[in-house]
Amino acid sequence: MIEAMRALKHPDANEFVLERVFYALSDPVRLDIVRRLAEVDAASCGELDGGRPKSTVSHHFRVLRESGLVHTDCAGTTHMNTLRRADLDKRFPGLMGAILNQPVPDVKRSRGAK
Amino acid sequence: MIEAMRALKHPDANEFVLERVFYALSDPVRLDIVRRLAEVDAASCGELDGGRPKSTVSHHFRVLRESGLVHTDCAGTTHMNTLRRADLDKRFPGLMGAILNQPVPDVKRSRGAK
Repeated sequence: MIEAMRALKHPDANEFVLERVFYALSDPVRLDIVRRLAEVDAASCGELDGGRPKSTVSHHFRVLRESGLVHTDCAGTTHMNTLRRADLDKRFPGLMGAILNQPVPDVKRSRGAK
Repeated sequence: MIEAMRALKHPDANEFVLERVFYALSDPVRLDIVRRLAEVDAASCGELDGGRPKSTVSHHFRVLRESGLVHTDCAGTTHMNTLRRADLDKRFPGLMGAILNQPVPDVKRSRGAK
């Protein structure tokens, strides 16, 4: 029962809205999370938060979930996140490929590497 | 001199920021303007405003200009807008094509046709 209450809501692929996806990607922290998730099968919030405060990061993950970009599984105390690439490709053909193909500006790469 | 003062500022293509483009596209009114501009050489604000109040539309055009999506020329009292497709394609290869390829939801088509 507690597990059921903690399950997070995710929109179905046919409920995805293009403008909401763009809004989710309009923040550098969220775009960075999406780029990182595109390179792995799944990652915990801790692996993606870049040391930012939990309250800030929780908000970003909620926006990412509600847009359809990210799926979060609650596994005990750890939240595991995945990019919903198959759903996104089905709903918005070619879009995620084009977005993820954009080079990451050097300043962000070096900042991320710190 | 008056003409020079009225000239609007536009970022160079190398100053475009991906997140700002996504923010500009995160509003249905602005996404609609971009889609309409993609189908014509140029259009006045009046042809694109959908009868919305001037104050609202001015804000949307400013966001579109500042992101790099739209160029506005002041020709007398008329502002003519163009999509900066060549600059966008140079800065973000493949991105605008993928965005403009997304089908427009039926509800928006019928609303726009009214």
